[in-house]
Amino acid sequence: MHILLCMAEVRVFAGTAGQRFAQKMCADLDVPLSPVKISRFANDCLQAQLLDNCRERDVYLVQPIITPTQENLMELLMMIDAAKGASAQRITAVMPHFAYARSDKKDAPRISIGGRLVADLLETAGANRILTMTLHAPQVHAFFRVPTDQLNALRELASHFTLNDLSKTTVVSPDLGNAKPASAFAKMLGVPVAAAAKERFNDHVEITSLIGDVAGRDIIVLDDEIASGGTIIAILDLLREHGARAVRVVCTHGIFAGDGLYRIAADPDVVEIVTTDTIPSTEMMAHDKLTVISVAPAFAEAVRRIHSGESVSALFDPTHV
Amino acid sequence: MHILLCMAEVRVFAGTAGQRFAQKMCADLDVPLSPVKISRFANDCLQAQLLDNCRERDVYLVQPIITPTQENLMELLMMIDAAKGASAQRITAVMPHFAYARSDKKDAPRISIGGRLVADLLETAGANRILTMTLHAPQVHAFFRVPTDQLNALRELASHFTLNDLSKTTVVSPDLGNAKPASAFAKMLGVPVAAAAKERFNDHVEITSLIGDVAGRDIIVLDDEIASGGTIIAILDLLREHGARAVRVVCTHGIFAGDGLYRIAADPDVVEIVTTDTIPSTEMMAHDKLTVISVAPAFAEAVRRIHSGESVSALFDPTHV
Amino acid sequence: MHILLCMAEVRVFAGTAGQRFAQKMCADLDVPLSPVKISRFANDCLQAQLLDNCRERDVYLVQPIITPTQENLMELLMMIDAAKGASAQRITAVMPHFAYARSDKKDAPRISIGGRLVADLLETAGANRILTMTLHAPQVHAFFRVPTDQLNALRELASHFTLNDLSKTTVVSPDLGNAKPASAFAKMLGVPVAAAAKERFNDHVEITSLIGDVAGRDIIVLDDEIASGGTIIAILDLLREHGARAVRVVCTHGIFAGDGLYRIAADPDVVEIVTTDTIPSTEMMAHDKLTVISVAPAFAEAVRRIHSGESVSALFDPTHV
Amino acid sequence: MHILLCMAEVRVFAGTAGQRFAQKMCADLDVPLSPVKISRFANDCLQAQLLDNCRERDVYLVQPIITPTQENLMELLMMIDAAKGASAQRITAVMPHFAYARSDKKDAPRISIGGRLVADLLETAGANRILTMTLHAPQVHAFFRVPTDQLNALRELASHFTLNDLSKTTVVSPDLGNAKPASAFAKMLGVPVAAAAKERFNDHVEITSLIGDVAGRDIIVLDDEIASGGTIIAILDLLREHGARAVRVVCTHGIFAGDGLYRIAADPDVVEIVTTDTIPSTEMMAHDKLTVISVAPAFAEAVRRIHSGESVSALFDPTHV
Amino acid sequence: MHILLCMAEVRVFAGTAGQRFAQKMCADLDVPLSPVKISRFANDCLQAQLLDNCRERDVYLVQPIITPTQENLMELLMMIDAAKGASAQRITAVMPHFAYARSDKKDAPRISIGGRLVADLLETAGANRILTMTLHAPQVHAFFRVPTDQLNALRELASHFTLNDLSKTTVVSPDLGNAKPASAFAKMLGVPVAAAAKERFNDHVEITSLIGDVAGRDIIVLDDEIASGGTIIAILDLLREHGARAVRVVCTHGIFAGDGLYRIAADPDVVEIVTTDTIPSTEMMAHDKLTVISVAPAFAEAVRRIHSGESVSALFDPTHV
Amino acid sequence: MHILLCMAEVRVFAGTAGQRFAQKMCADLDVPLSPVKISRFANDCLQAQLLDNCRERDVYLVQPIITPTQENLMELLMMIDAAKGASAQRITAVMPHFAYARSDKKDAPRISIGGRLVADLLETAGANRILTMTLHAPQVHAFFRVPTDQLNALRELASHFTLNDLSKTTVVSPDLGNAKPASAFAKMLGVPVAAAAKERFNDHVEITSLIGDVAGRDIIVLDDEIASGGTIIAILDLLREHGARAVRVVCTHGIFAGDGLYRIAADPDVVEIVTTDTIPSTEMMAHDKLTVISVAPAFAEAVRRIHSGESVSALFDPTHV
Repeated sequence: MHILLCMAEVRVFAGTAGQRFAQKMCADLDVPLSPVKISRFANDCLQAQLLDNCRERDVYLVQPIITPTQENLMELLMMIDAAKGASAQRITAVMPHFAYARSDKKDAPRISIGGRLVADLLETAGANRILTMTLHAPQVHAFFRVPTDQLNALRELASHFTLNDLSKTTVVSPDLGNAKPASAFAKMLGVPVAAAAKERFNDHVEITSLIGDVAGRDIIVLDDEIASGGTIIAILDLLREHGARAVRVVCTHGIFAGDGLYRIAADPDVVEIVTTDTIPSTEMMAHDKLTVISVAPAFAEAVRRIHSGESVSALFDPTHV
Repeated sequence: MHILLCMAEVRVFAGTAGQRFAQKMCADLDVPLSPVKISRFANDCLQAQLLDNCRERDVYLVQPIITPTQENLMELLMMIDAAKGASAQRITAVMPHFAYARSDKKDAPRISIGGRLVADLLETAGANRILTMTLHAPQVHAFFRVPTDQLNALRELASHFTLNDLSKTTVVSPDLGNAKPASAFAKMLGVPVAAAAKERFNDHVEITSLIGDVAGRDIIVLDDEIASGGTIIAILDLLREHGARAVRVVCTHGIFAGDGLYRIAADPDVVEIVTTDTIPSTEMMAHDKLTVISVAPAFAEAVRRIHSGESVSALFDPTHV
Repeated sequence: MHILLCMAEVRVFAGTAGQRFAQKMCADLDVPLSPVKISRFANDCLQAQLLDNCRERDVYLVQPIITPTQENLMELLMMIDAAKGASAQRITAVMPHFAYARSDKKDAPRISIGGRLVADLLETAGANRILTMTLHAPQVHAFFRVPTDQLNALRELASHFTLNDLSKTTVVSPDLGNAKPASAFAKMLGVPVAAAAKERFNDHVEITSLIGDVAGRDIIVLDDEIASGGTIIAILDLLREHGARAVRVVCTHGIFAGDGLYRIAADPDVVEIVTTDTIPSTEMMAHDKLTVISVAPAFAEAVRRIHSGESVSALFDPTHV
Repeated sequence: MHILLCMAEVRVFAGTAGQRFAQKMCADLDVPLSPVKISRFANDCLQAQLLDNCRERDVYLVQPIITPTQENLMELLMMIDAAKGASAQRITAVMPHFAYARSDKKDAPRISIGGRLVADLLETAGANRILTMTLHAPQVHAFFRVPTDQLNALRELASHFTLNDLSKTTVVSPDLGNAKPASAFAKMLGVPVAAAAKERFNDHVEITSLIGDVAGRDIIVLDDEIASGGTIIAILDLLREHGARAVRVVCTHGIFAGDGLYRIAADPDVVEIVTTDTIPSTEMMAHDKLTVISVAPAFAEAVRRIHSGESVSALFDPTHV
Repeated sequence: MHILLCMAEVRVFAGTAGQRFAQKMCADLDVPLSPVKISRFANDCLQAQLLDNCRERDVYLVQPIITPTQENLMELLMMIDAAKGASAQRITAVMPHFAYARSDKKDAPRISIGGRLVADLLETAGANRILTMTLHAPQVHAFFRVPTDQLNALRELASHFTLNDLSKTTVVSPDLGNAKPASAFAKMLGVPVAAAAKERFNDHVEITSLIGDVAGRDIIVLDDEIASGGTIIAILDLLREHGARAVRVVCTHGIFAGDGLYRIAADPDVVEIVTTDTIPSTEMMAHDKLTVISVAPAFAEAVRRIHSGESVSALFDPTHV
Repeated sequence: MHILLCMAEVRVFAGTAGQRFAQKMCADLDVPLSPVKISRFANDCLQAQLLDNCRERDVYLVQPIITPTQENLMELLMMIDAAKGASAQRITAVMPHFAYARSDKKDAPRISIGGRLVADLLETAGANRILTMTLHAPQVHAFFRVPTDQLNALRELASHFTLNDLSKTTVVSPDLGNAKPASAFAKMLGVPVAAAAKERFNDHVEITSLIGDVAGRDIIVLDDEIASGGTIIAILDLLREHGARAVRVVCTHGIFAGDGLYRIAADPDVVEIVTTDTIPSTEMMAHDKLTVISVAPAFAEAVRRIHSGESVSALFDPTHV
């Protein structure tokens, strides 16, 4: 039996929102980022043209699904369509952030379920695989019928704190019901974990209490994503009430809609805000307290493993084969 | 514009596990339960035969997906296949309990996601619609691509307590992260709500604390389903520590695997266990403290509304149109 | 054999861009326009909620695919998804204008073909039928695999000129290769037809000559759509050279991107510009010379016929059965 | 033109019922049998986990569809689902026996056709290819829409008799209407063939007569499968009446439901019963007169050829290219 | 619960080969046969146009798949495509004879399986249902994934012999392995049954013997179809050898390719050949000994039942509900 | 990152109509043309058998879709089906001419759209890719959902005139609305272009005028295909009226239905007719004035590039990457 792995050449293209991220990925992969021409016609229709031969190539199309969400999604669908028509061997949609993951349930009558719908649209356009990071709910993974790799940024985020004195630090999960990532993160740092009780009573969310001890502790709040920042603001108040000391706010997806970043940064207890580059920074997202860690190398490594048939799960969980 | 609603005749069939439930539904609907012949051959293959004409009928196939799960699932798939081949106008799979909803995420490498797989199998066999009750996670609803109605039993369970003196009662949710049903239930009863903090740290579950006041209160613990009963046992201990009084344990899906029912009933604080008939009772599921409330009438009403084109959401949430 | 036609109740919903058009349709149909709630979240994701029961209804979702094209398309896809999940009996996407029809061929390597892609996306979301008007190329009709009715506005546009003295009028087609509509239009008016030769040599378009006599004639230029207006400006020059008199510019889809309307209206020979309301007027689209004729009644009549099973082709071509 | 064949690494996994067979296959292929973890939850739901990286591998999932049929089928569907989600390059379901092949026609109103249904379920789960042996009816091959290789065991079964003195032997087909395999088998052995007339009149089967001469002959009865053994018992009586001598009963699929094996073995004329290991032996299937020949090497050879792109038909029929 | 059956109007169209059959059906149904225009272009491409509104109609497209097989099949596929595009509510392909049923297995390497392929093509074109008669092998029924009704002509054929003196008659099946229809036919006539042993040894067919007594009997040979007539000629010889008297040859599908009819009719023992009109008669198919019984009334009754939701199986087997 | 391209062996098979063309392709590719056995049964059903192992091969099936169109199409569908069942790695349908491209729009009510239907049938049968030449309308490309390469013959046709004195030559497009190919062709030859105005008024086509100067010029009329030749005859008259000199008629697809070739060749001004071999010559297609240029080498080069992952667009347009 042969073990020769056959590898088509890798081709990486990126949509408008994915250019910077893809460039970092390509630098890491040591492959060029192939150019894409996105045209917008007088009637506001888009058209994507891939400017490099992708016949029989292993094609990766990088585009975070972020604001302007519909434009970016349509660009991605069109790049997939173009790659399919151009005889790509395999098409992987690389979405560092997939905003529609939050539309995952039917909590009111006659509503669309955007997460599932967009998963189906990507498959219809011709995506053969999905590569993404930390979907809002773990069940969303199963919305995709094509093979899907879901990375997480815990290792990258943890390494940021390697040099800190963490002896008085506690990791706080803002969502008691989903404290597994915070627990894993605390374990990486060798510190205890606590959790805020975020109760959902009929649509509104209230942070009512804290499980675990935070008095006199340095705090790292770990969340999967921060959009408007309302939940974090509420937790900051609660932490203050319970006598916590300096707070570091850490999240994978730093959306920071509106003035979210400034509202959090304005809190005097907040000494640092750490996020990744799954959402490209805009001018509104610059602040002294903000540190952005790139996960493009992690995506590059995942692409390398996907391409060469190595385990991707092993990359993120050493206990997995 | 006409408003004449065209209604094909309703036909209800049931698999082995759904006979009793379907009979109650049919009594409520005032339609006969049509007979099914399930054959098992020498090679252990199953075959389903529907013994009533279902050509151009609006067909409902009742089968809870419960132990023996694979047998019951295969029976349902075969009844669907038979109904499709027999020119049914529309086929609704009625699953009072859908056990595979718990297999909803990829929390280990290279595992099957049973909930999504079975949703796809039902569609392949020919199901046009799904009618079920309280799926374990709300996202599972979106695993089905065919229109799906998900009922809940809160109204039926609440009405059981109408005559009780509830002035000292508090409803407790065992899952703080999913306290919305308990909150709605408490509102129906006009009583306060509390929640136990069920933290998931790397696969094992621990009940560590209680949010809300339970000292000296009569407690109604409300859960979506009870399988082995481990979580409930842990909450009972916690409630005792916090000075709660009599406890009533209430759940929609009373699986009570193994000696689960007896372990809970053996707790002296437990005065009553209330569940519904989404899982048919077996001998192992009889106990003086156990009350079983039928939700077959609710399913019958849903069938009536599905059939006649009335809103099903309105049935369960008066605030919905 | 029975001839009873079964009619589910009609439900009409409209997206943001289709509200005004749908209101006119509903007035004509004498059915209420059911409300839709389009939500936009902090992460710029959209969600559609249909605010009227559409279970077993014959649902029509009105949305022209116009600027902002991606937003309007996504709204439509989500309304379709919501209607499917809400057990609509049949879902017809009503697109008075379908901008992506212009992306219909692969005239460069590795480009997306938006028209075909969007047709597939609509089917994936759950559209059972399409109702639209005058697609840019007749072949685009076949991009849709679901039954599609393509209306035209010739009758409505022609009736606008009923009271004019047309004895000296000639209809001019700007596209000699597709002069059939102009010919049919001229026949309706009882006047001769001429055509401009629009040659496509390697991507650029040139209007080089006129087939037919226009000297001393009143001219009606009939085009399917006017976007930037460049073609019309070129024809106006050509008509002037050939001694034409007053010119009326008539088109079905008045996109008028940028200052297109003003550039045409500024031509002193142009006495009137006539279009329909398939694209809703904006402030930029108001001008003394502009007349907008509503085709909403034609769409209403088509809906009535689709709903009641009458021939739609008969509506537009009396020679058809 | 290149002739380099690209070969992904082979991965073989097996379900509960296929372990022993797969081990023999792997020994022959000289590849390890990768481990699988089948979990059964408190609610009797199954979950499959593949414990070896199968990304970009050529994956073979071995599971005979035998008693307990539904359990084994569901295990296979779940292994397929897990392999698809884990980015297997190609998934071949290896079913040494496919019991549902017998449910192949609609011989009563409103019955399921299990063979076709299960073929569709396997495709939905994600199977790209099927490898199986001797389906009960040749038409069942076409129930599968994915490429399917159907092996037969004639060569293996014939080689068992190489050392016997066959000068007085006749091969008897129990099914005159399907005597082709018996004929081919007789040709391999260089002996004449006869056939029993198995008439099907309204559901019951009767063995009424013998075509061909058996008086004084040693008999080899060759059938595709033996389930309850009723047909064989009837033939034994018939052979006795016609003066046959020692009888050897040979079949590919030795199901031997109930006490089938013992009933046949108890016949004094029966000197030997020969079958293959497509159905794993149980304690009930042990008897002095029984010889089990492994076809695992044949499956291993087929896998080797499928993997390396060599003809599989050539393997079983030397007259085929 | 309502029992109102909603019935769209029936529309019957026929392809070139189905005109005569469809006219008889329509006469029986008392509906007009709607006209179809089949165009053939200079490049030998076909186009079908349905010349009656079929919007929301229950459409039946009648076309036997017979010589010229490819032309007739393509006509049917195009009529289905036209009906789908014209918004038919339901499309039933009515194929009195389906010649491709004989291509049902893979009995040589790398061959097409026409029966399954054509079943898939019909579904792709848009057929929602199939109505046909006596497929060559019962398994072919399952090649169709859309609901399929398979009629048989036994009742019609039997009624032809009502007035005959059958006291000395025996029904003979030419295929011992598939003697069920002959047995049912004999039961209808109240006479005994016999069977010829048609052995298939490596592609060639040989009629070697007769099971049952035919000496001095009047014989009715019943076959499903007669193509070249070779099998029948062989049976006639065998019957003569066994002392049979007058022979009547009866079949459902009278293909009579080449001079098949004349070869059989030339046999002096043959007193009558009886077939149905599933294959329209040509000049080559006229002979004094030939009687053609119309099954169009049976198809008309099936259409009536399909349309009104009555059991079709009950029509052909009084023991079925 | 590896750049090793993995190449399965190429296998080329051809249907009845593609034999000669495929032989030329194979000569150019230096691979053998593998044999196919097309069987026609007594009931006029076809069966295709591929007589060379195509397991894991890159399979090309050559068949122009020409008269007899239905026979040739069905042969191709069956070869595809056989290749799929025989485990081909990839199946490319090579159609030098695709006659059904002309059925591309719904220009009458309730007609089939053959181009789209056949595209779907090819996909259903199992075609993974399409390779064809110059489809009648560019939009037809998008009827195919599988990757499609559309070649053109301009380079081959132009090279035929390399040695001619072209100083007085003008290229004339018979279709002003689709003059792009003629323009490109003129550019290759370094000569001017003119166009005939082919107006389509209600189904009939009229050649009314000429744009550009042809008086005293040698003319090359370039059309995509010539079927009955009516359009060319009309242009010849027009050219004569305008004082053109010698005329060369050039087309890619020389269908020449009926006596089309002779009618054109009989015109004294016509000095040469040039076409390609996409349609195989018949006896009716021989004439002194006719030159046939083979495009088989271009198809061979396209196959080589498809197989090895090189750009195909670069082959035909040097300005493309």
